[in-house]
Amino acid sequence: MKQRNPNFENLEPSYLFPQIRAKAEAFAKHNPEQKLLNFGIGDVSLPLVPVIVEALEKASKEMGTEEGFHGYGPEMGYPELNEKISEVFYHKKISSEEIFVSDGAKCDIARLINLFGHKPTIGVQNPCYPAIADSVRILSGAQKLQLIPCDPTTGIPLDLENLTCDILIIVNPNNPTGHLLSRKTLESIVQIAREKKILLIYDGAYREFISQPGYPRSIFDIEGSLDCAIEIGSLSKSAGFTGLRLGWVAMSRHLHYKKETTPVLDDYKRLIQTTFNGASYLSQKAALAALSPEGHTQTKRQIHQYLQRTELLRQGLETFGLMTFGGKQSPFIWARLAGKTLSSWDLFHVFLENLGWITTPGSGFGSAGEGFVRFSGFAKPKQIQEALDQMKTNHHIRRFL
Amino acid sequence: MKQRNPNFENLEPSYLFPQIRAKAEAFAKHNPEQKLLNFGIGDVSLPLVPVIVEALEKASKEMGTEEGFHGYGPEMGYPELNEKISEVFYHKKISSEEIFVSDGAKCDIARLINLFGHKPTIGVQNPCYPAIADSVRILSGAQKLQLIPCDPTTGIPLDLENLTCDILIIVNPNNPTGHLLSRKTLESIVQIAREKKILLIYDGAYREFISQPGYPRSIFDIEGSLDCAIEIGSLSKSAGFTGLRLGWVAMSRHLHYKKETTPVLDDYKRLIQTTFNGASYLSQKAALAALSPEGHTQTKRQIHQYLQRTELLRQGLETFGLMTFGGKQSPFIWARLAGKTLSSWDLFHVFLENLGWITTPGSGFGSAGEGFVRFSGFAKPKQIQEALDQMKTNHHIRRFL
Repeated sequence: MKQRNPNFENLEPSYLFPQIRAKAEAFAKHNPEQKLLNFGIGDVSLPLVPVIVEALEKASKEMGTEEGFHGYGPEMGYPELNEKISEVFYHKKISSEEIFVSDGAKCDIARLINLFGHKPTIGVQNPCYPAIADSVRILSGAQKLQLIPCDPTTGIPLDLENLTCDILIIVNPNNPTGHLLSRKTLESIVQIAREKKILLIYDGAYREFISQPGYPRSIFDIEGSLDCAIEIGSLSKSAGFTGLRLGWVAMSRHLHYKKETTPVLDDYKRLIQTTFNGASYLSQKAALAALSPEGHTQTKRQIHQYLQRTELLRQGLETFGLMTFGGKQSPFIWARLAGKTLSSWDLFHVFLENLGWITTPGSGFGSAGEGFVRFSGFAKPKQIQEALDQMKTNHHIRRFL
Repeated sequence: MKQRNPNFENLEPSYLFPQIRAKAEAFAKHNPEQKLLNFGIGDVSLPLVPVIVEALEKASKEMGTEEGFHGYGPEMGYPELNEKISEVFYHKKISSEEIFVSDGAKCDIARLINLFGHKPTIGVQNPCYPAIADSVRILSGAQKLQLIPCDPTTGIPLDLENLTCDILIIVNPNNPTGHLLSRKTLESIVQIAREKKILLIYDGAYREFISQPGYPRSIFDIEGSLDCAIEIGSLSKSAGFTGLRLGWVAMSRHLHYKKETTPVLDDYKRLIQTTFNGASYLSQKAALAALSPEGHTQTKRQIHQYLQRTELLRQGLETFGLMTFGGKQSPFIWARLAGKTLSSWDLFHVFLENLGWITTPGSGFGSAGEGFVRFSGFAKPKQIQEALDQMKTNHHIRRFL
């Protein structure tokens, strides 16, 4: 092979989460007596709900029979599931033919970047989930990435009027800030996108954590979004599918290229048929169960638990003088010291070395995250309570707060 | 959005298999009395073997318990599975850290093209499985695709010495020709690749269909391949995983860029961590079962059945005067008329309209496939026998042969 792909040359040496894992493992090795508590990676912790497990068992049995075996499915997903997603999440405003079932949001971001090729500039919130910016760096090149300056406490772009990117990726509820955008902010974003012909990619993977009434759960709840936005959805966080892998991309047939009659959707369909072979049949059956009325009741209960845990942790952190943001319509708490200034990695080490807590350093989400750490609220209430008690009695940690 | 990605502009209007499906559906609609028989798409038809079904049921149950729940797994696959693949397919010549478990070979082709960026020229056999050439056209642009002239009956490149591509993708056993490369041919390919610094991507998705002794099953069985080749593997065809989705990429740490010390593997790891979130936990558990000694016995029996079916069909087609190629170490028969000349699509229509047979037109695999159709041997023996009997008594069809 003659040449290395230059896009890899200027990447930070390691992707954030493996880096954190390595540091935590090194600490554990040298401090075998210290119990570790993971507030780091945003992974669900409650088991799959009964209705999903039943669906998986049934589909597994079925796959062992001649009549029930399923090989390749439609690359876009089984129509029954697409229909269900259209109904449950979009009230049919997005039809089943406008939904592309996938193996998850992270992969969808990469496929969407591939869809538009390496010419458009792509705006990403600063701070933002690092896989998004790195996907642009790897697939399109760092020169195509625009890190959009945002309010570091919310992730809202500071200067919408002066955006110059061709594509803007917005995550709502936000990761890492845990902030939920209001209808008014979303309306401004859609308006600017229309005026400037910016394509919006709206990542709504945490939508089921929105409990406050009046807040839009989908970009397609905003008028004028159908011909300027693409939405990414996922069952990872709302139904515990991080191990099963199931997400989707939703885009309207009305989304067109400028001066072109081709709907963007036609190109995406072609890309999906060529480079993807559908989500696992079992995951699709599990998704149907998750979206059934019974599945909805069972999974909603879990979301409620996660929100309660997050609130317990948030209040505890506030008590100790940390400033917290988000964490109310999201499982993520974004926190920093009130007075003293420590870098995100220093703060990460303070928590790790004094309490055995694994957090995520805010600077790993972009320069605007410097000074923050992200906590996720997926740990068990008992563990959270123990952690907070431990913090109360730990003198080393108190001197930083 | 300002511009359409130009890579979509010069694609053939539709990906081959959906096109065939549409034609078959239209025919069925107008001829409801005609039974259709699918010799088209290469999908397995036997149910999952018992040991795999048991593993799936067990893992499903496990996911419903607190201790057994699995969320995000390692992006490269659970170490136990990587270890097993290293052992079963590579006799540890490729270590578990050199294997990237994935959701299938089609997606891996796309990820590997992404790995090398849009600068290298990519050589693809003509004829070849269409998703490969189209993936290059979509992800790198048609100008980066080199269709390598091959012997149309085998798919062996005609002029190895004069290859000018940076990357060469080789499928063995071949799809569509069903041909199996000899050790000698593979040795020449590796030698040329080394001399010309061409990176080989070796797609061995059909390796378990190789029954003839003395034929290499992996590119890594060829001396000198470790630092010039990447292999793609899959359980789709060998264990019925087309619906479960599980494949892998294997590459040695010794594969380097010219004048660079970075192993290619480090960049791929980064790409995988950034743009992929692991194969389904259930599929990985099923894969472990498939690769257990019991799983091997059970799945081997299925491969044997498919090979028998293919042979039944091949002999039948020969009896009627079709010239057949492949189909002995592969589930694919590559066939054309002996004397008369019909285009691939004409031949496709002759079979569809007179017999209700769905085949795959050879020209869909590239210009070198013109005049051929591909038959896959996954149909039931009874159906194959019926189809052949029907051919015997059908005067319309006989006049073409």
